[in-house]
Amino acid sequence: MASRKHRVVIVGGGFGGLAAAKALDGADAEVVLIDRRNHHLFQPLLYQVATAALSPSEVAWPIRHLLRRQKNVRVLMATVVGIDTAGRAVLLEDGTSERYDSLVLATGAQHAYFGHDAWEAFAPGLKTVEDATAIRRKLLLALEAAERETDAERRKALLTFAIIGAGPTGVEMAGAIIELAHASIRGQFNTLSTGDLRVVLIEGGERVLANFVPELSAYTLDALRRKGVEVELGQSVTDIDGEGVSFGESRIETKTIIWAAGVAASPVAKWLGVDGDRAGRVKVEPDLSVPSLPGVYVIGDVASISRYDGKPVPGVAPAAKQAGRHVAKVIRARIDGRSEVLPFHYKHDGDLATIGKSSAVIDFGWIKLKGWFAWWIWGLAHIYFLVETRTRIFITLSWLWIYLTGQRGSRLITHGDAHKTRPLDEVNEE
Amino acid sequence: MASRKHRVVIVGGGFGGLAAAKALDGADAEVVLIDRRNHHLFQPLLYQVATAALSPSEVAWPIRHLLRRQKNVRVLMATVVGIDTAGRAVLLEDGTSERYDSLVLATGAQHAYFGHDAWEAFAPGLKTVEDATAIRRKLLLALEAAERETDAERRKALLTFAIIGAGPTGVEMAGAIIELAHASIRGQFNTLSTGDLRVVLIEGGERVLANFVPELSAYTLDALRRKGVEVELGQSVTDIDGEGVSFGESRIETKTIIWAAGVAASPVAKWLGVDGDRAGRVKVEPDLSVPSLPGVYVIGDVASISRYDGKPVPGVAPAAKQAGRHVAKVIRARIDGRSEVLPFHYKHDGDLATIGKSSAVIDFGWIKLKGWFAWWIWGLAHIYFLVETRTRIFITLSWLWIYLTGQRGSRLITHGDAHKTRPLDEVNEE
Repeated sequence: MASRKHRVVIVGGGFGGLAAAKALDGADAEVVLIDRRNHHLFQPLLYQVATAALSPSEVAWPIRHLLRRQKNVRVLMATVVGIDTAGRAVLLEDGTSERYDSLVLATGAQHAYFGHDAWEAFAPGLKTVEDATAIRRKLLLALEAAERETDAERRKALLTFAIIGAGPTGVEMAGAIIELAHASIRGQFNTLSTGDLRVVLIEGGERVLANFVPELSAYTLDALRRKGVEVELGQSVTDIDGEGVSFGESRIETKTIIWAAGVAASPVAKWLGVDGDRAGRVKVEPDLSVPSLPGVYVIGDVASISRYDGKPVPGVAPAAKQAGRHVAKVIRARIDGRSEVLPFHYKHDGDLATIGKSSAVIDFGWIKLKGWFAWWIWGLAHIYFLVETRTRIFITLSWLWIYLTGQRGSRLITHGDAHKTRPLDEVNEE
Repeated sequence: MASRKHRVVIVGGGFGGLAAAKALDGADAEVVLIDRRNHHLFQPLLYQVATAALSPSEVAWPIRHLLRRQKNVRVLMATVVGIDTAGRAVLLEDGTSERYDSLVLATGAQHAYFGHDAWEAFAPGLKTVEDATAIRRKLLLALEAAERETDAERRKALLTFAIIGAGPTGVEMAGAIIELAHASIRGQFNTLSTGDLRVVLIEGGERVLANFVPELSAYTLDALRRKGVEVELGQSVTDIDGEGVSFGESRIETKTIIWAAGVAASPVAKWLGVDGDRAGRVKVEPDLSVPSLPGVYVIGDVASISRYDGKPVPGVAPAAKQAGRHVAKVIRARIDGRSEVLPFHYKHDGDLATIGKSSAVIDFGWIKLKGWFAWWIWGLAHIYFLVETRTRIFITLSWLWIYLTGQRGSRLITHGDAHKTRPLDEVNEE
C-alpha cells in the first residue's frame, strides 16, 4: 500500500488558523483550511468600518487570495457542524466530511450577553463585516432620523450613543463615534446641534482598558472625557431595550447601543465532547493539544492556555498568530515521527489602543507611550501588520485623507436585502 | 404678510436631482432634496462593484456630503409615498409632508421583467449598491460551490453565467464576469478548469449595443467572442428558474443569471394621477413640466421627452444631468416671475461602453473609437465625471492595481444579516 500524505484540517481562517496554514508551507502534508466565510478579517480595524472611516474591503481579504502561492493548502468555504473524533473527521453542513490526521481548531469567539440574549437585538456587537456595516447603518440612520425629528426629547435620544464595555474595542468605538458625530453635525446636518450629542461609555469595572497599566487607563479616561465622552465606571448594565439602557440607578434614553462587553468561544468544546471553561474555551496541554485527543489542537480565542507565569494568554491577534505558528511546528514534528512535547511560550509584545485622532496608548512593557506620538506608532504598527500590500496603500491613503480633510470615506447606509429598500422607520426599529 | 421664499422640492438624488439641486445654488429659494437613500450612486461604474473591482464606497457618496457647501438646500432621507397635487405637497411615509412651489421628480427607473416578476428571484438586476453586492456574492459563491462540487454536470452549471440583455450594462457585465472568473480560477481555484467556464450573453435584438452604430456593434460582438463570451442574438427568454434559463429552442443550466434587459420608471405617473407610457414614464412639455400641473417637472429616466428630431431622449446620465440643469433654469425664471417657456434641448455627447480590459467602444458622432485607445478614453472620462476628488484618487489606484497585478480588490462575500451567517447552501438557493 502506498503511504499517503499526512492530512491537516484547520477550521477557521482568522489570525490563528491563517498563521498555522502559512507556517505549514512546504510541509509534507495535505492542508485543508475550512471557513464558513470567504475572507480573513483584520479585526483590530473593524471598528473603523463601523464608524465609516474604512470600507469593508480594506480590512478583509479572500482567504484563497492570501494563500494563493502555497501549493499544499486547499481552501474550503463550508460550515462545520461537528467533529467525529473517533473517525477523525470534520463534519460539514452539506453532509460531507473532511478526514484529518491533525486537526487545528481556530474558530474564535462571538459576542456574549451573559444570559441576556434578548439584548443582542438592541445592542449589536462587532465581530464580522456585517456587524460593522449594520452598526454603521445604525449610527448614520440615527443622525438622519434626528434631522427629521421635531420633538426635542426624542431628538436628544437619537443623538445619544451608548457603548457598553471599556476594553480596547469600546474605547476605540467611543472615540471614533464622537468624532464621526461631531464632524457630521458640523459639516452636513446644519439643523442639529453638537450640544445635543451624547456619547456614553459604560463599564462594569473600575477603570477603562483594564488590561493596561493603571497610568495608561487614567490617561485614556482623561483623554475620552476631554473629547466629550461620558464615562460611567463600576456600572453594571441591568437592562437594554429599544428605548435605552439601564445601569445601576441610572437610565439613558438612546436608540443606538453598541455591545463591546463580552465574548464567548465558539462551540468547539461541544464538538469535541469535552468540558469548556465559563467562557466556553477548551483547556489545552502545553503543546496546545486537547487532553486525550491526540492530534487535535485548539488555538486562539477558543483555547484556554496558561502562561508559565500563571496568567492566561490574552485573546488578542498576536497570541493567536503565535499559537498558529507553534501548532504548525508541533504538527511538523508529528509528521516527522518525533514525539517530544513542544510547549507553547507566549511572548507578549505589548498592548495598543487608540482613543481618537492624535491620541493613543501603548504599553510595550519596557516603555509606555501616550498621546500623539503613540497615535502615530499605533497607525504605523497597524499598517505594518496588514497582510496585503494593496490594503497598506489604500488604508494609508484613507487615513491621510481623513487626517487632512476630516472627511470619512465610507458613510454609506446600505441594507442587507437586495431588490428592496426598507423604509427608514422599519430599519430604525430592527 | 412677509413674503416667504419659493420652495423647491426635488425627489431623487441621482444624476438628475443632484444636478438640479446644484444648479439652484444661490437661487432665492428654499430647496429640499428628498431621497430614500443617503447616497448618490455613480451608476455607470456599479457593474464594477458587482464584479469585485471596486468597493461600494468608491461609487457612492452621501448626498449631504456632495451638497455640504450649498446654503439653500436641505437634504432629507425619507421615502415618498405620494403627491398631493392640489395641496402642492409631497407625502412621506412617516405621515409628514413637504410643501412645494416647484416640484422636480427625478426618481429614476427600476428593473422590469415584462410581466414575469417571478424571474427577479433568480435573475437580479443591477440598480442599487445592494444589488451589486448581492450579484458579487452570487458570482463568488458559484465559484466556491463549484470548487466543492464533485458531480461534473453540476459543476459545469455552477461555472455557467448567463446575462440577459446586451445593452451597455449587459455587455460590460459579460466582459467583466469572464475576466473575474478566469482570473479567479487560474489564481485561486486550482481544482477548477477554465474549460468548464461559460459566460452566455442573451439578447432579444439582432445586435449588441443597439444604440451604437452597427460598425461598433459588430466590433463589440467580435471582441466579446474573442474573450470567450457566447453571444446569442435574436433570442427571447421564455423562462427563468433556479436551475437555468430557456430561450428560443435552447436551455442553459446555470445557477447565476443576471438581468440587464429592461427597466421601468418609478411610480411617478401614479403619484401625479397622470397617464404613463408603456415603460411608466411621464410625457412632459418642452420645458419638462407636466401638462396641466404647473410647477411640476419630471426629469431623467422617469420622463418621456422627445427631441426636436423626433427621437426620444435616452435614459443615460448626461441626459438626466442636462435636464436637471435645465429645470433649475426654468424654476429660476418662475421665481423671477418670468413666464416664457424655456424648451429643453438635449445635446448628445456620445456613447461609451467597455468590453473588458483594453477594449471599449466610443461613439462621439464626429468620431468613432474602438479597442485599447477607446478603453483608456473610457477610463479617463469616467474618472473625470466622478463627483468627488477622493474617489478619483481611489478609483484610479484601484484600476491601476488591477491593470498591473490582475487582482480585484473587493472579492468579499457578505450577507445582509448581521449576527447571523447563513449557510452556503441556503444562500445559493436564494
